[in-house]
Amino acid sequence: MKGKVVWKEGMAFTAKLDGFDIIIDADEKVGGKNLGPMPKGLTLISLAGCTGMDVISILKKMRVEVDSFEVSTDGSLADEHPKKFNTIKTTYRFTGNDISSEKVKKAVSLSEERYCGVSATLQPAVELISEIIINGEIID
Amino acid sequence: MKGKVVWKEGMAFTAKLDGFDIIIDADEKVGGKNLGPMPKGLTLISLAGCTGMDVISILKKMRVEVDSFEVSTDGSLADEHPKKFNTIKTTYRFTGNDISSEKVKKAVSLSEERYCGVSATLQPAVELISEIIINGEIID
Repeated sequence: MKGKVVWKEGMAFTAKLDGFDIIIDADEKVGGKNLGPMPKGLTLISLAGCTGMDVISILKKMRVEVDSFEVSTDGSLADEHPKKFNTIKTTYRFTGNDISSEKVKKAVSLSEERYCGVSATLQPAVELISEIIINGEIID
Repeated sequence: MKGKVVWKEGMAFTAKLDGFDIIIDADEKVGGKNLGPMPKGLTLISLAGCTGMDVISILKKMRVEVDSFEVSTDGSLADEHPKKFNTIKTTYRFTGNDISSEKVKKAVSLSEERYCGVSATLQPAVELISEIIINGEIID
């Protein structure tokens, strides 16, 4: 599995992945021009996308239908350099009629414990916590 | 620092980061439609972009000018689930006249050891190795 970033100008790079191009840049505060997202946050998207795809595909196999589904990942960084992720909270939000909270909990734990390679990569360094919300209600 | 992915259809999600949208999807082999890059590789781009921005900004401070600069990250995954990254090799490639290999080595090691929060996040789980190539020559 390969990725590449090619310097454009200033702090901007073209990221190349799976045949797609994504412009990344730094914020204006650190000399960028804000032409694209900053690179550190891509780790959050990588985690959210990885577990999100696991969960939607497991739910499909379980014949659980959802109207909407989103995964937020909220990271807190170390105060000192290197500013690594200390904690990432993953929130799984679903809406729909007749969503079994037991099946959703099972799908999320299968992703977190068994399938999501990004979670497994981050685990030793980052405290990973998660929450499930179905139709606005937090599920324990 | 926050990221979010919003389910579109099938395995495709819209990733939202720093005010930008990126479509991510799975490969056709696993039920996606290949509408965008796969999420796991975003970890590689996150690392390449983080260290790339460190290095280009440190070189600017050192008054080292380069014609071109790219950072490739090549990851190998575990064979079994969860398919975490076992090793990531980062290759820094520069072209230009009059590039001091000592200054480049210094800039890369400052990023790897001090500044890059993504390296520091991955370090405990992943063997991180790196290589510097200036005008086609590997620098020891």
